[in-house]
Amino acid sequence: MDELLKEIYNEHLGMVGEGHVADYIPELAAIDPNQYAIAVTTIDGQEYMIGDYETRFTIQSISKVFTLALLMKQMGEDIWHFVGREPSGTTFNSLIQIEQEKGIPRNPFINAGALVITDRIINYNSKPKHVILEFIRELAGSDDIYFDKAKALSEFDTSYTNRSLAYLIKSFGNIDNDIEEVLDVYCHQCSISMNVVELAKSSLFLANSGRNIYNGNQIISPTATKRINSLMLTCGLYNEAGEFAYRVGLPGKSGVGGGIVAILPGKLSIAVWSPELNKHGNSYRGISTLEAFATKLGISVF
Amino acid sequence: MDELLKEIYNEHLGMVGEGHVADYIPELAAIDPNQYAIAVTTIDGQEYMIGDYETRFTIQSISKVFTLALLMKQMGEDIWHFVGREPSGTTFNSLIQIEQEKGIPRNPFINAGALVITDRIINYNSKPKHVILEFIRELAGSDDIYFDKAKALSEFDTSYTNRSLAYLIKSFGNIDNDIEEVLDVYCHQCSISMNVVELAKSSLFLANSGRNIYNGNQIISPTATKRINSLMLTCGLYNEAGEFAYRVGLPGKSGVGGGIVAILPGKLSIAVWSPELNKHGNSYRGISTLEAFATKLGISVF
Amino acid sequence: MDELLKEIYNEHLGMVGEGHVADYIPELAAIDPNQYAIAVTTIDGQEYMIGDYETRFTIQSISKVFTLALLMKQMGEDIWHFVGREPSGTTFNSLIQIEQEKGIPRNPFINAGALVITDRIINYNSKPKHVILEFIRELAGSDDIYFDKAKALSEFDTSYTNRSLAYLIKSFGNIDNDIEEVLDVYCHQCSISMNVVELAKSSLFLANSGRNIYNGNQIISPTATKRINSLMLTCGLYNEAGEFAYRVGLPGKSGVGGGIVAILPGKLSIAVWSPELNKHGNSYRGISTLEAFATKLGISVF
Amino acid sequence: MDELLKEIYNEHLGMVGEGHVADYIPELAAIDPNQYAIAVTTIDGQEYMIGDYETRFTIQSISKVFTLALLMKQMGEDIWHFVGREPSGTTFNSLIQIEQEKGIPRNPFINAGALVITDRIINYNSKPKHVILEFIRELAGSDDIYFDKAKALSEFDTSYTNRSLAYLIKSFGNIDNDIEEVLDVYCHQCSISMNVVELAKSSLFLANSGRNIYNGNQIISPTATKRINSLMLTCGLYNEAGEFAYRVGLPGKSGVGGGIVAILPGKLSIAVWSPELNKHGNSYRGISTLEAFATKLGISVF
Repeated sequence: MDELLKEIYNEHLGMVGEGHVADYIPELAAIDPNQYAIAVTTIDGQEYMIGDYETRFTIQSISKVFTLALLMKQMGEDIWHFVGREPSGTTFNSLIQIEQEKGIPRNPFINAGALVITDRIINYNSKPKHVILEFIRELAGSDDIYFDKAKALSEFDTSYTNRSLAYLIKSFGNIDNDIEEVLDVYCHQCSISMNVVELAKSSLFLANSGRNIYNGNQIISPTATKRINSLMLTCGLYNEAGEFAYRVGLPGKSGVGGGIVAILPGKLSIAVWSPELNKHGNSYRGISTLEAFATKLGISVF
Repeated sequence: MDELLKEIYNEHLGMVGEGHVADYIPELAAIDPNQYAIAVTTIDGQEYMIGDYETRFTIQSISKVFTLALLMKQMGEDIWHFVGREPSGTTFNSLIQIEQEKGIPRNPFINAGALVITDRIINYNSKPKHVILEFIRELAGSDDIYFDKAKALSEFDTSYTNRSLAYLIKSFGNIDNDIEEVLDVYCHQCSISMNVVELAKSSLFLANSGRNIYNGNQIISPTATKRINSLMLTCGLYNEAGEFAYRVGLPGKSGVGGGIVAILPGKLSIAVWSPELNKHGNSYRGISTLEAFATKLGISVF
Repeated sequence: MDELLKEIYNEHLGMVGEGHVADYIPELAAIDPNQYAIAVTTIDGQEYMIGDYETRFTIQSISKVFTLALLMKQMGEDIWHFVGREPSGTTFNSLIQIEQEKGIPRNPFINAGALVITDRIINYNSKPKHVILEFIRELAGSDDIYFDKAKALSEFDTSYTNRSLAYLIKSFGNIDNDIEEVLDVYCHQCSISMNVVELAKSSLFLANSGRNIYNGNQIISPTATKRINSLMLTCGLYNEAGEFAYRVGLPGKSGVGGGIVAILPGKLSIAVWSPELNKHGNSYRGISTLEAFATKLGISVF
Repeated sequence: MDELLKEIYNEHLGMVGEGHVADYIPELAAIDPNQYAIAVTTIDGQEYMIGDYETRFTIQSISKVFTLALLMKQMGEDIWHFVGREPSGTTFNSLIQIEQEKGIPRNPFINAGALVITDRIINYNSKPKHVILEFIRELAGSDDIYFDKAKALSEFDTSYTNRSLAYLIKSFGNIDNDIEEVLDVYCHQCSISMNVVELAKSSLFLANSGRNIYNGNQIISPTATKRINSLMLTCGLYNEAGEFAYRVGLPGKSGVGGGIVAILPGKLSIAVWSPELNKHGNSYRGISTLEAFATKLGISVF
């Protein structure tokens, strides 16, 4: 595995300059686009890593996987009364679908769906930001994970589209709490900073039928785990989900910070980080890395 | 004219129960749906009225005509850089058009367009609410016109869709000011209360080439006046503009308070009030009244 | 009037090269873009003309006014059960509106609406092409008007979008006849060729309360006439209807052959021809000519 | 396995009357809704079956899997120049996506995509209907499979929406052949009749890395096979693909004839038939059967 990661890493080291880093949040625009890291963790406790694996980045939309898991743990299947499970077919922050489908977001991984999930987490937890952070710390087996408060604030100040989405959903009655509070929690969850090793570790329960190998806790049921994986496969990469399933063939979730995590059920989790994004908002070097990884190992869920 | 109004009034007195009063603002839902009034004012100073013509109602979206006229007076043709002049083809608070057309509202009479107009009025005037109220008082030739502060507050508290619209427009850079301030001014302009006589008088300048007969001031140019009239004809009644042009044949503007005003250029203005609305959000008794008025007098711009 | 037309003509003679002639029909692409003509006819029988007023061009979508008038004469108000009266808000051949509104076209002047009108004309007339041509000949007071069969065939062979529209409408049950037959009649009506004088004359009944001044016949009622005029004002220039109402202020209808006709109710009709089109598919020199005409004469319905 | 199928069969025997059989094709509307069959085939040659497993039904949209495999075999990856790989997010015969995305269908499993696939099969094969039928016969290891000509003709005569789609795609230049010919081939492929055993056998190569166990031929490459499976998972059940992935967790494809086939890569294929459809056009008893099968066996790709 060490050899394989080294091979893939070297093949991709020069793959920069074909996209641009996220710039809609001022704090994200300043990042060095050359940074690149890969980490693999296996359910029997092995860890492999290469590149800038000690550097932390904000997980952004990858946090949607964790908040979904947290709320599924707290609410169970009732969650599907207020958010759907179908691919969205439009861009990740589109308002059209919300207007046409009366305030029910298509799935938990578009921004609209994640805002609704966050709203319900606020309902169920008196200190929602604290609870989300502690949940991710438990998953990663580490207390050394934090919000990047500057990025949270930067995103909060410029979240016009997300505020528009949130107010639209509220106009249909599908958000309970004050929009500014929902946005505050949401921007904090997006700002959680991890390196690729921490990201791979915190996602490993999804490869292990929902059980955390670091403390032995069953986080969510095996069935719930399969369902999150199926959602990641069909909806995890915005408008590029089909392409990702086609090229990589693993459940995955990306964030505009340049991170992507993917799951091989029963085996391992892999996290990649490379800040430059393609037109769909996904790290193109990250996708190419995962495609090489899946192809060279001959792995795929299909 | 007195006889004509009496005849039309009596024919329409029983036309109630076919729709419902606006209920999206709690303060509007409590209104007595049987109320009904008509007023005609002519450019040579005649006034005719019948029914509940002393009762005031909030003008709601009719205020969009006045804020448009005010901003055209202050900015001239530059206004069309940030708002369009075409019919919208979708419901009056739709977000789809804004998303598809990159933040430029189709016209000044959909909510999105009116919010942009209000935003620019804030740019041009240090006391925007005061300036709007004084402008309407001048048009009506009366200082005895006020905001209905309770209704303004009621609308402000529940304006989720308008906040969603405003934040979406701001995400495209087409609103300058803080959304809460824009909403505050907007909800105040909607809450301005007039009776049908005051409403007909305040609209009369549009039938008189832009000149106010009460103080002799040229409010806006004859050309600007024609243009507002053309916008009222093509866009004044939401998704029912074509139907209104077809049945009534006069420029008009409606509000969810149940008021409608129509203009016969060179001759007169007519205001009707009846609170029950049809599915398009327009007073159906108001439209029928105007149709009867236009048909019996044989007037139409066509 | 002769002086005025000469002045406007000279001001606009050099206005070419800012757009392109219609090229979606091969037969239209070959036209000389410099051609330019204006004609005015008045209800008291005066005729004024300048430029290439003897050259015929295909009237294309202007034919929609004539088929609407013909069907209103034959069916009356029942026509509105299967076609709407509202502006479309989308491009002139869009399928989206048809799909969303279950096969009922928004108005008779978008292609979808015109296809439905033509379908019903086939229902009501055993020789529909002949009846349409004879109707227009009567309106123009001339038997010397013909189909341009080559252009009709050229359009018929390449009408993929219109076939798509027609089959979609048929899937909702709102077209009765075979699609190929509907397309054949439709392409023929579009191919009718007239010069500006003939076009102004054939539209003059719309300025004369529905009465033909050439044979004295009442073609359609004064009310029906007003209604066609209102539809021309709100829907006559595709996505530029609001702009045309704003700048010109008269009911009008354009065709991709470069012709535009406008009506001043109670007074006159004016036809302009200049083949180059703007991005909305309207003759930009034609619109500018009509704007100058309306402005210099101080006419407008508003 | 025999016991398992019997258990599932008995649990689902009474699950009828909650939907309706497809009626948009007259020939389909007459079917007995109580019919129900399950068949499983494994890559080591085992076959299990229960219920009405000898009765044939038209495979309808399931044929899209076979024509996709055929064209991938003939064209390779070039296929993706004219059809996408993303979930559609709208109903299966929607025209909106085609209009917005300039004639490129979202994926090969919506009707628009399948029409484009069929068009290219016509380009590559002089007897396309014959070639498609022979391809499926090879897959199923049987020469005893036929078109249902009556159903093909019935669908051909009423395919207004598909004609509309096809002409729209042709207007963007993405269909080469005559629409009537494309429709003829398409309606024939949809009319291919199989029983569940034949359907499971003809799909088995997708569970076997593209190799046909009946004649040993490598139909398509292992990579191409994985890719078809990923498309089935993300796009195989119209607007219910996410739900199917969530509940069943296997690549699958449904048809309005009531059939559904699903694949467990490396193991088996399973076909179910029950004619009544839910609002998404999928056999609800079929989906429930597959969910029970996957749950009781503890299988899933996730």
